[in-house]
Amino acid sequence: MRTYRIALVAVVLALSLRPVAAAADPLPSWREGPVKTAVLDWLAAVTLENGPDYIPPAERIAVFDNDGTSLCERPHGGSSTFQKDLVRSLVREGRIDPERMPFSAWLADDRDALRAYGWSRAYADMNAGFAGMTLEAYRDSARAWIDRNPHPRYGVLLPDLYYRPMRELMELLESRGFMVWIVTASTQDFARSFAPDALDIPPGQVIGTWTEPEYREVDGRPLLLRSAVQHDNGHENKPGAIATRIGRRPVFAAGNSNNDHAMLNWTLAGPRRALALWIHHDDDAREYAYDRGTDRIAALMGSHANGHVVSMRRDWARIFAFE
Amino acid sequence: MRTYRIALVAVVLALSLRPVAAAADPLPSWREGPVKTAVLDWLAAVTLENGPDYIPPAERIAVFDNDGTSLCERPHGGSSTFQKDLVRSLVREGRIDPERMPFSAWLADDRDALRAYGWSRAYADMNAGFAGMTLEAYRDSARAWIDRNPHPRYGVLLPDLYYRPMRELMELLESRGFMVWIVTASTQDFARSFAPDALDIPPGQVIGTWTEPEYREVDGRPLLLRSAVQHDNGHENKPGAIATRIGRRPVFAAGNSNNDHAMLNWTLAGPRRALALWIHHDDDAREYAYDRGTDRIAALMGSHANGHVVSMRRDWARIFAFE
Repeated sequence: MRTYRIALVAVVLALSLRPVAAAADPLPSWREGPVKTAVLDWLAAVTLENGPDYIPPAERIAVFDNDGTSLCERPHGGSSTFQKDLVRSLVREGRIDPERMPFSAWLADDRDALRAYGWSRAYADMNAGFAGMTLEAYRDSARAWIDRNPHPRYGVLLPDLYYRPMRELMELLESRGFMVWIVTASTQDFARSFAPDALDIPPGQVIGTWTEPEYREVDGRPLLLRSAVQHDNGHENKPGAIATRIGRRPVFAAGNSNNDHAMLNWTLAGPRRALALWIHHDDDAREYAYDRGTDRIAALMGSHANGHVVSMRRDWARIFAFE
Repeated sequence: MRTYRIALVAVVLALSLRPVAAAADPLPSWREGPVKTAVLDWLAAVTLENGPDYIPPAERIAVFDNDGTSLCERPHGGSSTFQKDLVRSLVREGRIDPERMPFSAWLADDRDALRAYGWSRAYADMNAGFAGMTLEAYRDSARAWIDRNPHPRYGVLLPDLYYRPMRELMELLESRGFMVWIVTASTQDFARSFAPDALDIPPGQVIGTWTEPEYREVDGRPLLLRSAVQHDNGHENKPGAIATRIGRRPVFAAGNSNNDHAMLNWTLAGPRRALALWIHHDDDAREYAYDRGTDRIAALMGSHANGHVVSMRRDWARIFAFE
């Protein structure tokens, strides 16, 4: 009888301990504090069935900017560095004239000449230089470039520069039925050459500055080529791209600069209880500290109860998976 | 003992019957014949793990044209009829001048005047007339229009005009891990006002002719408005839109006219064993019979082992769910 009682107590104890084991910290790289609490409180509220803030699964759309929000963008973003290398290889193949502007300035890294020419025109003309490449050739070049260009400070490749706390947050959201989308001003085909694998999402869930493909049939065989027509996906174009591609207003958004202001503003203005995070680069010791072009996103966070400032220094116990 | 044996026999019998029950016809509205066999054989081959034609789940992309392929498009497509009604209501609100071309011709249904003006220009100008509407207002107008415009012959609403055999095929594909996308030349925002609900897919999986949204802030409050800039999603633009939005080449495609030729050709030319279906309208008794603008898609089906002609008369036992 005594043995029986001890066994019963053991079973009751084991059962009562189960909830503790199940409640393991879903954000271990986030330090305890007001931001982590706000994220977890919001998630609990919007997934509580019959609760006042409940968001049905179909509306659980989460959008993340890529460079500087989800992964390290310093000392220089991958996309434009890759494209300058691609210009060099097309010059070697005789497909681009190295004396012509803006290619001469791109090759010489002559920022004054590029500024005088106009940055957006310089980028558009560079993109036009890739017209005629197949989509596959461009993507393969991007992948090959990523594989041979480790980060100058950390020595790892671009896909390993995703922030561990942001990956944990994406995985937590996905585990609660959210669809995670990347919405970046960077080149879509470049971002798609590594982000889908690194984040385990389909390529269609990576929205960026895109080039209209051109369909052509050569002896009846269909080809998709890059054209010279490019659509910018920065700043105020992000909400429109979200409406066109996703077709729903997000209920979660994360960004790191004024480039994300419109996206976060659009998210916060919706009828659901939304959450917006501004990733603030204030950790020069472990990453980089910079503030340029963040005044509007900072003001937005200051004016919204559902907007929060993530201090990389204060809120993240760990920044990279390789640490 | 005898009772025991009978019970055992019953259990064995019940177990042996289970596979038969599980193998219920997944395409009950399709008549037995070469097309149904080809579809089921292809699906079995591409989902057979370690088989020579195996397609990994991430690549299981299926694209369906909408009007005339997935649902009835006769006697007139919904999108342009709705837009003509929208012109009328904007005229009543004083927002469109009814004397101006092409609106005067649209209102009078003067096809000669529209042809002289140029069809694509006439459609583009009509779309420009909707610039400034919020995306929500356009979508709500579309829904309201659909609800008050039953089909003149069948008496049911647009969402009920989806073909039962195509719904069965979509559901079968989804049950095998395929992602089903609608790729239509019709207006994206019109198609999204009913297709996602009718087909149980997210709005982002409906790709159509789209209007660039314009982001504006009024007293800090963000708005998305329709602009005058429209991107046609017909014909040779379909493969490019698929690459831009989905980011993968489909392995299944269905269409009903030359408008889908490029999409089916692009699908069939991929490295995987793909399947393409041309829905041929040859059933005047139960639906409509028409052939205009189908010579190129017919020729494509004739030249590809993996392309099949679906005769609505011969291959479909039932066309609509309401029958």
